[in-house]
Amino acid sequence: MPVHELTYLCLANATSVMLKAPDNQVAGHQARNGNLGPLIDDSGRFYKPLQGDERGSKEVAFYTSFSSNTKVPDHIARFFPKFHGTQLLEASDGSGMLPHLVLQDLTFGRVNPSIADIKIGAMTWAPQAPEDYIQKCMKKDRETTSLVFGFRLSGMQVFESKESGFWRPEGRRKIQTLSLDCMKLYLKKFVSSNTSKMSLDLKPDCAFASTVYGGSNGILSQLLELKAWFEDQTIYHFYSCSILMMFEKELALTGKNPRPEIRLVDFAHVYEGNGIIDHNFLGGLCSLIKFTSEILTTPEESYGDGLMTGDARTSHTYSENKNGRV
Amino acid sequence: MPVHELTYLCLANATSVMLKAPDNQVAGHQARNGNLGPLIDDSGRFYKPLQGDERGSKEVAFYTSFSSNTKVPDHIARFFPKFHGTQLLEASDGSGMLPHLVLQDLTFGRVNPSIADIKIGAMTWAPQAPEDYIQKCMKKDRETTSLVFGFRLSGMQVFESKESGFWRPEGRRKIQTLSLDCMKLYLKKFVSSNTSKMSLDLKPDCAFASTVYGGSNGILSQLLELKAWFEDQTIYHFYSCSILMMFEKELALTGKNPRPEIRLVDFAHVYEGNGIIDHNFLGGLCSLIKFTSEILTTPEESYGDGLMTGDARTSHTYSENKNGRV
Repeated sequence: MPVHELTYLCLANATSVMLKAPDNQVAGHQARNGNLGPLIDDSGRFYKPLQGDERGSKEVAFYTSFSSNTKVPDHIARFFPKFHGTQLLEASDGSGMLPHLVLQDLTFGRVNPSIADIKIGAMTWAPQAPEDYIQKCMKKDRETTSLVFGFRLSGMQVFESKESGFWRPEGRRKIQTLSLDCMKLYLKKFVSSNTSKMSLDLKPDCAFASTVYGGSNGILSQLLELKAWFEDQTIYHFYSCSILMMFEKELALTGKNPRPEIRLVDFAHVYEGNGIIDHNFLGGLCSLIKFTSEILTTPEESYGDGLMTGDARTSHTYSENKNGRV
Repeated sequence: MPVHELTYLCLANATSVMLKAPDNQVAGHQARNGNLGPLIDDSGRFYKPLQGDERGSKEVAFYTSFSSNTKVPDHIARFFPKFHGTQLLEASDGSGMLPHLVLQDLTFGRVNPSIADIKIGAMTWAPQAPEDYIQKCMKKDRETTSLVFGFRLSGMQVFESKESGFWRPEGRRKIQTLSLDCMKLYLKKFVSSNTSKMSLDLKPDCAFASTVYGGSNGILSQLLELKAWFEDQTIYHFYSCSILMMFEKELALTGKNPRPEIRLVDFAHVYEGNGIIDHNFLGGLCSLIKFTSEILTTPEESYGDGLMTGDARTSHTYSENKNGRV
């Protein structure tokens, strides 16, 4: 591990703990090459630098509220990272001491986890956010798949093999603007065994779909648990929050439980629900559930001509349609 | 009935049928006082003039597609008006012959129906709509309750008694911008027996909540059926479409089935779903379901200081909150 990827946690009692950049981060700022980003220790904690503007304090306020909120049932709280307060740490970019959120390292104890980071919601902005922020987000929501699909892919790593490591889709912009066929392809590739090349002529075999997406403890089942809560809860509105989907391919290959799990992350734009459900998050979640359940029910569905080149935003009204029928 | 509220249906065989403005229209353009609006006959048909721009042709195209779509199950198709084609008619504003949609008159056979017209969806515009239309709609969605609640009230009539007739909230603008407490109040008043005055100090008794909203054939049950379809269907996206909720108070007062029903109307902005669920409509529908089910579970909930004066758009982030807790 290069020295520049290390930093030190200066504890109150003046001992030091070695910190490093996470191996399994698929989206967001990364603490590499002198940049500011989150760090992990070797005991399962994840240190996220507080963002300089008010996003940092908002995320602390959310974790403080959520971790002490007795109205959140345990089977829902488990989908959120555990919160261990904040701590002043040497920032990964060498800029000095910065306050960090101390969170559960969600991939701690996992071996070569495959991970997808999916930002939920057609809108990534709260109605009460500042106008310039709304305009910036709305532009991006319209340019990416967010507005049309109700979510967008923010990052992904799919474990291939010990030899070739992970497949990671290239181009942050590209994965945020996938066509419908591409989004389905990526979500299939995520649970397939034939991932040695991201090849257009290689159809993903969805070998792990039934054990990762399916089953009583699978990802779909967990998404449905989360959905049931969102149909009812009016405490929080989660804008620009992501769902992580994770599992371990090597366990699946040896017939073991691949430990499929979902987790929610990124709470810098959480607002009070004020008695109204979070219909924006819920709608996007239902859309993701539909994508996932279709892979379980029709894994063999063929792809159209739009593969890898389509545009999620292409659609027709009925009057433009030759015979007005679907 | 004044003569100016009548017009004549010139049928192909040159006979004439007397048409009149509907008695039970709670939203939209009305065919009174020389204005252009829909008409009804005395056999249960509703004649809606095609809107001059492309909205008219889009709505025809939708009805044509929907009425012949065998993928729509019967228990869902019943929520939509029956479609009987189009017909050239003398327009209600005297401007000459205009094409009209010939639809089922949804209130035909009902006596003094109480009706609420609720426009569903946080966004009333399709991503692929023209930019100027998007901007116009977005402005209104943000100014009304649409963006925050996921729906807005477009119109309402609540039958009081034969003597005093209907209570109709005043001010189209006002009902579109109700506070949370007001929206709850209106949805309670809709199913209450003590509606003789829209009085702030008169708490709605929700006398008909259990028979109108509740029960196996009640409005909530119908909304849930619709929801299940929207979780799965990827054929249509319904922007700016309304749900009508209807029942008959006089039946309820005599212990009979008040015939609660929901119907969907206004399809000038329906687009192809292209394999994606309508998460915008679904989110708004889930929000309406939550409002309705809360009235059934906690009809006695007291109102806060915001009654009649609150603003749906008021909310706080955690960092603005004194102790960061809910």
